[in-house]
Amino acid sequence: MITKNEIKRIKNLRNKKDRKELKLFVAEGDKTVLDLLNAGWQTENLFTLDSLEPFRATQVSKKDMSKITLLKSASSALGVFKIPEIQSVSYQGRILVLDGITDPGNLGTIIRTAAWFGIATIVCSHNTVDCYNPKVVQATMGSLAYVNCVYTDLVSFLNNTNKPIYIVAMKGTSVYESTLDQEAILVMGSESRGISKPVDALAQNQITIPRFGSENGAESLNVAVAAAIVLGQAYRP
Amino acid sequence: MITKNEIKRIKNLRNKKDRKELKLFVAEGDKTVLDLLNAGWQTENLFTLDSLEPFRATQVSKKDMSKITLLKSASSALGVFKIPEIQSVSYQGRILVLDGITDPGNLGTIIRTAAWFGIATIVCSHNTVDCYNPKVVQATMGSLAYVNCVYTDLVSFLNNTNKPIYIVAMKGTSVYESTLDQEAILVMGSESRGISKPVDALAQNQITIPRFGSENGAESLNVAVAAAIVLGQAYRP
Repeated sequence: MITKNEIKRIKNLRNKKDRKELKLFVAEGDKTVLDLLNAGWQTENLFTLDSLEPFRATQVSKKDMSKITLLKSASSALGVFKIPEIQSVSYQGRILVLDGITDPGNLGTIIRTAAWFGIATIVCSHNTVDCYNPKVVQATMGSLAYVNCVYTDLVSFLNNTNKPIYIVAMKGTSVYESTLDQEAILVMGSESRGISKPVDALAQNQITIPRFGSENGAESLNVAVAAAIVLGQAYRP
Repeated sequence: MITKNEIKRIKNLRNKKDRKELKLFVAEGDKTVLDLLNAGWQTENLFTLDSLEPFRATQVSKKDMSKITLLKSASSALGVFKIPEIQSVSYQGRILVLDGITDPGNLGTIIRTAAWFGIATIVCSHNTVDCYNPKVVQATMGSLAYVNCVYTDLVSFLNNTNKPIYIVAMKGTSVYESTLDQEAILVMGSESRGISKPVDALAQNQITIPRFGSENGAESLNVAVAAAIVLGQAYRP
């Protein structure tokens, strides 16, 4: 049995404000929960349908699980995790910068792709969706454990870096002809507005992904797809 | 004013069965609706908050729009479109084959990416999500107009093709070392189960995307991201 108060407390973690205050977030799904646990992330509470050895969990009914899920459909595990204090952030190697990504699925997918390519740090503008949003966590499929997301003012961050800054834009050097330096910063803009003007002004390099379809066809790529195509090229041996 | 009956009829187009029966689907959002209209797709009804010149539309209030939307939040245009009869499908050039893609966002993103690269035809297994599902349509951002989605039995389709068949898998030739023939078929598997056994048995070539992150890190890529990385390489001049 989960008490009404507990249900309410978990449901409140939908809201960024409550997550910040309580320093907690919710991760759902066996794979995501296990990945975070195996990476050493601490839980306040762990609810499962079946046992999740060797981790200690409160076994609950399907009905109870459906009361606490923050997603459309409940899964077999839900962890209330402590938001880790970021001790020290590595700014070594390639860094992704996100300028106003608002779709949780896009951010989660970008984090998952970054983890695949071994990118340690993503720097997000304050208006980028929170990486502990339940839908972001779901889309990361557990790889949130391997990537630091830092929220900061992009203009001052970019003003204080020595790394070359690349933006992905509609015009620029073809991704097939550009080399993304090992120490490069790659900036992806918002789904609807693209890169903000002050950030755009700080970029030395524009990368574009050539379109092979008809001119009447697709006008743009999904931002997580565009990031993946550019990173796919950047890591070409 | 929209009548209760009209609202009900539109809401029913959430369901694949009703879409099939009525041969109608719903597209929402200015950009998506305009792209379909400009590509010559026929509407049964077009509801907008503001006029959508030169197209004839029924102007409705925000309140009415929120009653008919099939998405989480209403936008400024909603079209009830006729599902086009596919006259003839081009199987020229590269073809994408989807083996059990279930997430609407993933299918929509794959269609959008295919349109960008000029892929004319996507062949889907019967258990792939319907391309006229409202969330798929939303994620295509209008590029549904430029890509044919054909639903068929994959085994018999693949048995009857002369094109070389490539699958994207966890093992195989690195995407950086494989060339995806101009006439190739590229098969992407389901998000949870990968490629089905009978389809796997028919593939002559396995392509894999090397992981650069730590072994403990991301275990997989989102399927739309994986497709994008492989296509990004395939179209490298």
